[in-house]
Amino acid sequence: MVINLNNLFNSVSKNSKMSDFQDLDHIDGVSVSSTCANLYSKKRDDVVMFYFRKGANHASVYTQSKLISENIKWNLKITKKKIKALLVNTRNANAFTGKEGFKALKLLAEQLSHDLTQKQKIDEQKPEKIDPNEILFACTGTIGELFPLKKIKDKIPELINKIKYTQNKYIWMKAAMGILTTDLKPKLAMEECYIGNKLVKIYGIAKGSGMIFPNMATTLGFVFTDATISSTVLKQLLKQNIKKTFNAITCDSDTSTNDMVSIFATGEVSNSNLNSSKDKKLVSFNSALFNVLLNLAKRVAADGEGASKFITVNVKNCKTEDDAKKICFSIANSPLVKTAIAGEDPNWGRIIMAIGKANVNLNPTKISIKLGNILIIDNGKISSNYKEEIAASYMKEEKIDINVNLNLGKKEFTSYTMDLTKKYIEINSDYRT
Amino acid sequence: MVINLNNLFNSVSKNSKMSDFQDLDHIDGVSVSSTCANLYSKKRDDVVMFYFRKGANHASVYTQSKLISENIKWNLKITKKKIKALLVNTRNANAFTGKEGFKALKLLAEQLSHDLTQKQKIDEQKPEKIDPNEILFACTGTIGELFPLKKIKDKIPELINKIKYTQNKYIWMKAAMGILTTDLKPKLAMEECYIGNKLVKIYGIAKGSGMIFPNMATTLGFVFTDATISSTVLKQLLKQNIKKTFNAITCDSDTSTNDMVSIFATGEVSNSNLNSSKDKKLVSFNSALFNVLLNLAKRVAADGEGASKFITVNVKNCKTEDDAKKICFSIANSPLVKTAIAGEDPNWGRIIMAIGKANVNLNPTKISIKLGNILIIDNGKISSNYKEEIAASYMKEEKIDINVNLNLGKKEFTSYTMDLTKKYIEINSDYRT
Repeated sequence: MVINLNNLFNSVSKNSKMSDFQDLDHIDGVSVSSTCANLYSKKRDDVVMFYFRKGANHASVYTQSKLISENIKWNLKITKKKIKALLVNTRNANAFTGKEGFKALKLLAEQLSHDLTQKQKIDEQKPEKIDPNEILFACTGTIGELFPLKKIKDKIPELINKIKYTQNKYIWMKAAMGILTTDLKPKLAMEECYIGNKLVKIYGIAKGSGMIFPNMATTLGFVFTDATISSTVLKQLLKQNIKKTFNAITCDSDTSTNDMVSIFATGEVSNSNLNSSKDKKLVSFNSALFNVLLNLAKRVAADGEGASKFITVNVKNCKTEDDAKKICFSIANSPLVKTAIAGEDPNWGRIIMAIGKANVNLNPTKISIKLGNILIIDNGKISSNYKEEIAASYMKEEKIDINVNLNLGKKEFTSYTMDLTKKYIEINSDYRT
Repeated sequence: MVINLNNLFNSVSKNSKMSDFQDLDHIDGVSVSSTCANLYSKKRDDVVMFYFRKGANHASVYTQSKLISENIKWNLKITKKKIKALLVNTRNANAFTGKEGFKALKLLAEQLSHDLTQKQKIDEQKPEKIDPNEILFACTGTIGELFPLKKIKDKIPELINKIKYTQNKYIWMKAAMGILTTDLKPKLAMEECYIGNKLVKIYGIAKGSGMIFPNMATTLGFVFTDATISSTVLKQLLKQNIKKTFNAITCDSDTSTNDMVSIFATGEVSNSNLNSSKDKKLVSFNSALFNVLLNLAKRVAADGEGASKFITVNVKNCKTEDDAKKICFSIANSPLVKTAIAGEDPNWGRIIMAIGKANVNLNPTKISIKLGNILIIDNGKISSNYKEEIAASYMKEEKIDINVNLNLGKKEFTSYTMDLTKKYIEINSDYRT
């Protein structure tokens, strides 16, 4: 069965626990096409191509794993300032597939660049020859299985055939669905902002699910703008915004071999020249980019495998941001905290436990802990106003905020995660399918 | 219902997945008594006292958490070389209970030392006055709840009344049961060995379950010997043996506020004088102590909450032991590896993922991975002999060995854990009871 996108829109809206995703529409210079290469036993879109007619400046951040997938090795070798296409496949991570896995990408890049060159000859007034080194790859799925080169290669003509120069929300939705693995919901976000007096768009889609721990995990995030920004400045912007967005989420503390978040600028809007991410003309763009990345990152956490609740952990008034971050992730990764939340149990003792094990120097008599706005621990003691019934009733909500105050300094960090449910075990203990 | 110990023996033996526990018997100088202080809604033994008629030299290691329980604070203040009793309670961790929690222990110690002094007057030829500072405490259970002082204090007369100077397997079993929380099985181990020409005993009991990560977690371990060994030497022996035993296990990466492993020497066997743990006369004792601690630690991991399989992770030929340990725990703590094992899926890609995220420098082309004796990855490539059916059949076993070889050096580490099942979620998401 091919997914009916109208039904999908409805079902997503009905079940959506976050504010609904935003519709993406046309953005100049990006063409999106998706198809089914039969990588799964079930019929679904599983390869997606982003084609940049006039090329795009680009920047990416990758997993911090010491064992990286072949597509990330490929991408890291690309030195071209402009790229022409990004090809994404699911089901197979192309990790630990050795030289063969890398060679498969080379063959795909050759085919794709050749066919796109033909396409340019037909469509463009000034056609360009496209080079294999102008193609990026994103892969996600099972590690260590033979990369399905032939299945994907056979679909290149169809992906190219589907290229349209005007995008709409259905095309984006198909792409957002096509990059998912065990995710339940497509993840899309957008912002509009000004660079000088020019209105520009920032569109983004992402996939997540399991294995989500800072430094990317099995996260793929792709952001597109029609602004004119050099690859160097894009890199600065991405680096400074990733820390508190994609690197602030965790689902299960596992990190994958394949994660990447990329930004592409098509340069269709001729805004004024920008020399650095610190340029004052970029203030509004910077904050819009942050919003898109945070929006996507939160959706990834909210849709973590088996999630029934979205959890925000805020740790403030620490001596250093690193201390705050350590405590944040100690709480957000604790199976005992996450199962308590799944069970709607305001078991704050487990939060104490997670704070204690974070290996951060602290003063127990200064710690305060709130669940939402409910004060539980006040300067190291149970608050005289604390009533467990009230906290227990708060725990029934779908969004849970854990607020910790060390009262030792001025630094803070916020991380995002989900609860740990039987469903997570079900999804991850099922034999690979 | 009070547990019928004969039935228990049978049921434990039938369900036991590890080699059965060993029966403990009489050991000179230790008296064990247990009773029910109604700390749970269900009737069960929940307080256990170990009384050392003539005192015992002792040493302990504690949780590395920055937030420690009141009983650990109490124990850390004890400077007496010999102690007279250890009182253990379950259900309540006496953690984050503030000054009141500490004061409760002081009151208990005063009562207990007073009553034990009376007991000495009746039983001993040379009675000694027992000081509150000769009492140690171990607590385990929920964090942050009011410590049940009265309930425990009221049971002191009964605990003293039950003191017998000859122990047997039933008394030890009752104690091993009395210190459990959500554990399913009592954990007992013993060894006999020689110091010089004197035969000495080493007995141990433990509890574990959730929140088990190195540096103790909610582990309690108590080891008793009738040998004559000073507290200083006991400390050396404990420290050098804890690293590869209790600090090599993990259930869910969480660490508690309350963990302690203690060793007590009653000095009833007058072996020759020992000045340091390096004394040649201690070689056999040292290895027997290691065996008891490892045996208990493995039982703790095997009985981790919801466990259906016992997992041994061995990482060898690393540059440093620390590298080996990091990779061991990255694998042993990975929810994705642990759920795959629960699902009996030889998903070695997740082992690769866990190796990659451990932040250890490695050479992918040198890594080898085995599941048991089945070679999967051979110098960075899938072994030509690898057949998934064979690995899948191995995964049905109850003990799973993951063997990783980095081929970079000579150091190794072994850690022990269990799989991650729906039962874990069930146990930990249930509202505290």
